[in-house]
Amino acid sequence: MFFHMKELQYEAKPDKPDPIFAARLQEILGGQFGEISVAVQYLFQGWGTRRHDKYRDLLMDTGTEELAHIEMLATMIARLLDNAPVKAQEEAAQNNPVMAAIMGGMNPQHAIVSGLGALPVNSVGVPWTGGYVIASGNLLADFRANLNAETQGRLQAVRLYEQTTDRGVRDMLSFLIARDRMHQNQWLAAIQELEAQEGVIVPSTFPTTKEKSEVSHTFIALSEGEESSKGNWASGPAPDGLANFQYLSMPGAWGGKPILSPAPPALHDTPPSVK
Amino acid sequence: MFFHMKELQYEAKPDKPDPIFAARLQEILGGQFGEISVAVQYLFQGWGTRRHDKYRDLLMDTGTEELAHIEMLATMIARLLDNAPVKAQEEAAQNNPVMAAIMGGMNPQHAIVSGLGALPVNSVGVPWTGGYVIASGNLLADFRANLNAETQGRLQAVRLYEQTTDRGVRDMLSFLIARDRMHQNQWLAAIQELEAQEGVIVPSTFPTTKEKSEVSHTFIALSEGEESSKGNWASGPAPDGLANFQYLSMPGAWGGKPILSPAPPALHDTPPSVK
Amino acid sequence: MFFHMKELQYEAKPDKPDPIFAARLQEILGGQFGEISVAVQYLFQGWGTRRHDKYRDLLMDTGTEELAHIEMLATMIARLLDNAPVKAQEEAAQNNPVMAAIMGGMNPQHAIVSGLGALPVNSVGVPWTGGYVIASGNLLADFRANLNAETQGRLQAVRLYEQTTDRGVRDMLSFLIARDRMHQNQWLAAIQELEAQEGVIVPSTFPTTKEKSEVSHTFIALSEGEESSKGNWASGPAPDGLANFQYLSMPGAWGGKPILSPAPPALHDTPPSVK
Amino acid sequence: MFFHMKELQYEAKPDKPDPIFAARLQEILGGQFGEISVAVQYLFQGWGTRRHDKYRDLLMDTGTEELAHIEMLATMIARLLDNAPVKAQEEAAQNNPVMAAIMGGMNPQHAIVSGLGALPVNSVGVPWTGGYVIASGNLLADFRANLNAETQGRLQAVRLYEQTTDRGVRDMLSFLIARDRMHQNQWLAAIQELEAQEGVIVPSTFPTTKEKSEVSHTFIALSEGEESSKGNWASGPAPDGLANFQYLSMPGAWGGKPILSPAPPALHDTPPSVK
Amino acid sequence: MFFHMKELQYEAKPDKPDPIFAARLQEILGGQFGEISVAVQYLFQGWGTRRHDKYRDLLMDTGTEELAHIEMLATMIARLLDNAPVKAQEEAAQNNPVMAAIMGGMNPQHAIVSGLGALPVNSVGVPWTGGYVIASGNLLADFRANLNAETQGRLQAVRLYEQTTDRGVRDMLSFLIARDRMHQNQWLAAIQELEAQEGVIVPSTFPTTKEKSEVSHTFIALSEGEESSKGNWASGPAPDGLANFQYLSMPGAWGGKPILSPAPPALHDTPPSVK
Amino acid sequence: MFFHMKELQYEAKPDKPDPIFAARLQEILGGQFGEISVAVQYLFQGWGTRRHDKYRDLLMDTGTEELAHIEMLATMIARLLDNAPVKAQEEAAQNNPVMAAIMGGMNPQHAIVSGLGALPVNSVGVPWTGGYVIASGNLLADFRANLNAETQGRLQAVRLYEQTTDRGVRDMLSFLIARDRMHQNQWLAAIQELEAQEGVIVPSTFPTTKEKSEVSHTFIALSEGEESSKGNWASGPAPDGLANFQYLSMPGAWGGKPILSPAPPALHDTPPSVK
Repeated sequence: MFFHMKELQYEAKPDKPDPIFAARLQEILGGQFGEISVAVQYLFQGWGTRRHDKYRDLLMDTGTEELAHIEMLATMIARLLDNAPVKAQEEAAQNNPVMAAIMGGMNPQHAIVSGLGALPVNSVGVPWTGGYVIASGNLLADFRANLNAETQGRLQAVRLYEQTTDRGVRDMLSFLIARDRMHQNQWLAAIQELEAQEGVIVPSTFPTTKEKSEVSHTFIALSEGEESSKGNWASGPAPDGLANFQYLSMPGAWGGKPILSPAPPALHDTPPSVK
Repeated sequence: MFFHMKELQYEAKPDKPDPIFAARLQEILGGQFGEISVAVQYLFQGWGTRRHDKYRDLLMDTGTEELAHIEMLATMIARLLDNAPVKAQEEAAQNNPVMAAIMGGMNPQHAIVSGLGALPVNSVGVPWTGGYVIASGNLLADFRANLNAETQGRLQAVRLYEQTTDRGVRDMLSFLIARDRMHQNQWLAAIQELEAQEGVIVPSTFPTTKEKSEVSHTFIALSEGEESSKGNWASGPAPDGLANFQYLSMPGAWGGKPILSPAPPALHDTPPSVK
Repeated sequence: MFFHMKELQYEAKPDKPDPIFAARLQEILGGQFGEISVAVQYLFQGWGTRRHDKYRDLLMDTGTEELAHIEMLATMIARLLDNAPVKAQEEAAQNNPVMAAIMGGMNPQHAIVSGLGALPVNSVGVPWTGGYVIASGNLLADFRANLNAETQGRLQAVRLYEQTTDRGVRDMLSFLIARDRMHQNQWLAAIQELEAQEGVIVPSTFPTTKEKSEVSHTFIALSEGEESSKGNWASGPAPDGLANFQYLSMPGAWGGKPILSPAPPALHDTPPSVK
Repeated sequence: MFFHMKELQYEAKPDKPDPIFAARLQEILGGQFGEISVAVQYLFQGWGTRRHDKYRDLLMDTGTEELAHIEMLATMIARLLDNAPVKAQEEAAQNNPVMAAIMGGMNPQHAIVSGLGALPVNSVGVPWTGGYVIASGNLLADFRANLNAETQGRLQAVRLYEQTTDRGVRDMLSFLIARDRMHQNQWLAAIQELEAQEGVIVPSTFPTTKEKSEVSHTFIALSEGEESSKGNWASGPAPDGLANFQYLSMPGAWGGKPILSPAPPALHDTPPSVK
Repeated sequence: MFFHMKELQYEAKPDKPDPIFAARLQEILGGQFGEISVAVQYLFQGWGTRRHDKYRDLLMDTGTEELAHIEMLATMIARLLDNAPVKAQEEAAQNNPVMAAIMGGMNPQHAIVSGLGALPVNSVGVPWTGGYVIASGNLLADFRANLNAETQGRLQAVRLYEQTTDRGVRDMLSFLIARDRMHQNQWLAAIQELEAQEGVIVPSTFPTTKEKSEVSHTFIALSEGEESSKGNWASGPAPDGLANFQYLSMPGAWGGKPILSPAPPALHDTPPSVK
Repeated sequence: MFFHMKELQYEAKPDKPDPIFAARLQEILGGQFGEISVAVQYLFQGWGTRRHDKYRDLLMDTGTEELAHIEMLATMIARLLDNAPVKAQEEAAQNNPVMAAIMGGMNPQHAIVSGLGALPVNSVGVPWTGGYVIASGNLLADFRANLNAETQGRLQAVRLYEQTTDRGVRDMLSFLIARDRMHQNQWLAAIQELEAQEGVIVPSTFPTTKEKSEVSHTFIALSEGEESSKGNWASGPAPDGLANFQYLSMPGAWGGKPILSPAPPALHDTPPSVK
């Protein structure tokens, strides 16, 4: 159960409107690694955690904070859209190419659909989808998903920071970028804690006797050249501590040529008589 | 540029058909962490790698192998669909509840659309989407995405292994599960290599002076209870080595209440006279 | 900014597991009119409200409650999935058609992807999408969207109530159904308040002189038969109070036959010489 | 069964081409509340109406008219695309910033994919989806969906009217805006007719004894501040006439803390030994 | 502009309800090659036809007929859903495995969302999308798309025919299958007419001097084995009449190894110092 | 199983960067008829081919080549994005409208998400979807799909050729356009081979006695005017050789008015008492 307080977790005031940047900022609100994704992801992971109270609380804390980040971005986008061009001026395009560029570069749905409010979409207008969310019931698996999300998310926030000079926008981004640092740190720490207990391979509970161990530490090079042999994934001990890496260059196949049975006549595939 | 050889990388022959399991197996072919996802993801990351030949080759090698895994799963699914019920038998449902269950549990598109072939969809029939793919141009970011993908993918393959007793299916899965171990090992090793050079926070090149460092190592607890204070993300040195974690319980807001400007009349929002 | 408390707003405990019903219950969690939709919709409407504090608060209150409903449903679904069949038993399908039916009827992603947790998807497994959300910046418009959402949502909850006899599930649904009554009442009351101030046609601020008033109160019957003339939309005063309804049966067109200009050659459409 | 006549229901001729506005106009053709949505929605509602001939005819009449509106918009968009830039002129971008803005602001698929024809997509190019359609089998529920659709649709048409000065476009929009007034009037009238017979809460046939009546007229304030207590949804008689509204500020929870059972080992979630 | 008559183009009455088949029949209503696809496709092609009245009329005629097919299928599906299990009977699943199978195999949205009406979705419940529609402005291109649509559509209808023994369903399908024969015939005839005028390669108006003619008639074999050399695409005159086919087995590359420039620092990709 | 060689099948080097064209070029990479579509389509068709080795090989050869085309386009797009504006320059928009136009017209995800790499999306940023893929198990059906794909694809490539003057881009497109000619030729030849064996109507194996032959050669004109009678689909022998075409103008219906049974009470549709 949730409560809402009116204050923003951190300020979200641009120096001045910028409808093109408003469209871009949608990426970290409603994109694959936007705040909607991490909020929904952490909350669903928390709700699905069966025992392990410490981790459930960790997830609920962080998921609840991400709701505040959605709010900050929605507020910032609404303010960046103040004064957006929503009324035709007869000669606008001809006489004012900058205005023409703005009309071309802003998200037209901000003017037509949302009435200058934020939308649950990304920077090209594609709606956010639940298909982005990762919640597997395995905490180590999901913390890796979370580390990745905060990694991609911080990278995008930094890129957006570089694409504006608005001090208010940069101030808010500097807060989100710092939180993303914390969250990378946090998931790294939680991952270390779990890996120390169960090892680095997920899931840790599947017996190694049931996997084809001949190929479980072998790098298979299937592209021309052997530059890939120069990394620490190609030789030396593997992170799981079970074996050394092997490097196998351009091997043949272990399987045979597949031959499929004919389809039953009721399918009306190509008739067998065809040659 | 690619070449194809006819043999499968590893054998893909079930003991006997099972159309319900065919539908389920689609998850690791065309789901969020299916083989299409990792193949496309690694190849796009490789094609987008600007210099760094060793990593580009690593990506191309692995992406090329994943194409072979798509092929193995597509072959296995086609064979699991042999003899699927594609012709009505008058009394089937009444007299044969197992047949009825099969017709209910299989993916109807296997019978209607693909003619007993695999489809680029997941286990509930939702088409694979390019929205799953992650390729950011930052190798450490992307290797974390890859580690996560192999983690989720192996977990799903193991679960599917548990859901069948077919020896042929299990044999193929034991190969894929071993490859997923290798790929987890591999991305872990590559991540270690990169983290050793640039540190653990992505991106590593954004000056820390530009982020709000007051909150870059602070765990903010926004949900009732303090179970989350018991993890190593709540105190002690943070993985980035810059500071110790702080734990801040139920703090207030740093920002103010947002007040938005009225919308321009041309938007035809709620008129200002409304109370 | 949000806080979370651990207790559920209302209890969410089934009498016994039922994985098929878990799949169905996803509809009111992650479907078009599920709790994710109303939560995101009300919050985005609230964040986009420019002045009008009373309505903004109304939206934030209700949106925050809907977050608690997501949590209740996610918890209920996880419990309905306890003991779901996630391990193959050799002869299961042959000897136990009910088990076969369950495996056919449950959402396979609950067993493969989420590890028996809820997912942000609907009852057929299609992910929730931001494309469901409605937030226009015009409060009367959006309260109508909200009334519709609570209307469709309550109808679906009632249908699900009829499809189970589990007392725990029915108890939780009886709470949600009551809240949906409240929310229908609430949006009806808010709509009445707004309509009393600005009239019933949205937007109220566009001058009637700019619309083609000849057809603004005319019912145009374009299908065979005149049963549609028997409703109060076909004659008598219209709700907007500006005119009486007219009924126009099978009229001709006001426009002409469209003739389009040829496409420029650089498009390589069908060449003009073709006949 | 349908017949088509060649004349447009109303004229659709712009004064001059405008490829950026063509992209924007797609919103009310292929967006969430575009003409495709209402046409498909009304027709599916009509085809699903079981008895109630008067309402079925109403739906078929209106759905058939909306097909004509799709046609008008498709024609208008094709004409707005006449002379769109589909051929490179060497120095275009450098010397002619307005041309550059047009190339940036138009939908590139109009030039590459459709050959200057309209597309079943919205103003940012996202394809129309059947997920927009609402057809529940309950007429009062669906008429509220229809009222909302005409409300959002008219609001968007008015905003587009403000964004152009083209007299031909405005003339067509003035027709559609008038029809949207009629359709708001019509669904309001139909809703009044149904509410007079079955009351305002949908569905009307579910016994009130089965819902948790303690919370069916209670406004629950879960966000800071009590501005929301000032509306007519917070006190006084509720629209359903069963009780007065109550206002409950920041209440605690009715449910307990959820504790989930551990997952079965075959799921390979986090092992129980992890702390 | 359209008119609707109440009669169905052809009868749509099943002998008896069958909710599982109702779910399957959705494929040819709302799937990739369902009737919604062809209706919208032909109408958009017609509306986008610039001159060429004969072909525009052909498209409008056929598109208008497809609207009637949507109606027939929507009606048939509603009738197949009569008596679908929408009320829990306490012991249903335990005592009646056939009922359990039906509940597993039907589309749950038919019971929860649509109230036993058809939905604009396919046989697995994925909503129809405008992304299926093909309308390029080039008639020969689009008639090939249409031929393909009628080909896939008839194949699916035939497969569904085989999957039921209901005489009413089969009667309706026998009508649709015949119409699909006509429509294949029709698009074949129209294609012949166009190919006779402009040749078989689309677009016909791009000068052959601008394409790399060295590879315009060469079959490039990039997979092991030369079975593909046995077809009439590997030798002999090509259908465009410009040259004979050549067969090139496992050739090398015409291009070089791609080397990309480093990314600018503001992107925060992997730093150049990384090795 | 696949191997990758480092060289591109053909060179992919633009004369100079052009981020707007990079966005457009995404259409033939990740659009409905982009190279991802044809690669996945041919490979899935190949993997699903049951016997018919010659055709399976044909499909695998061509699918493998299309993988090389994805690679060429991904490389070209990355190079067109060199020097894209990814850093704010304070006065950029005001002083440099061309720069403003570029920022408006490029795909913002190229700067924020992919780090100047190609994405698996189309020219408006909509992700590629498995829903585009066609693989039916019937070779003649699928070769028609393939012919259509190469037809639409070549048309789009030609239009893009016209929209740039960059010699490097045009050189690469001239290669792809030539390959698309070859592939149209190839599918035409394969279709001829199959049609010669089984006739032109798909599927060829469904008995004509089971279809409603009264309407299998009849053109039904349902739109005003008879221009459509002037084509060779309206009279003369049909391509299937079974009968002559008939032309039937504005016929009535063969079916009756549909009357649906009332819904069961548990659905809570509109109550029967409503009038």
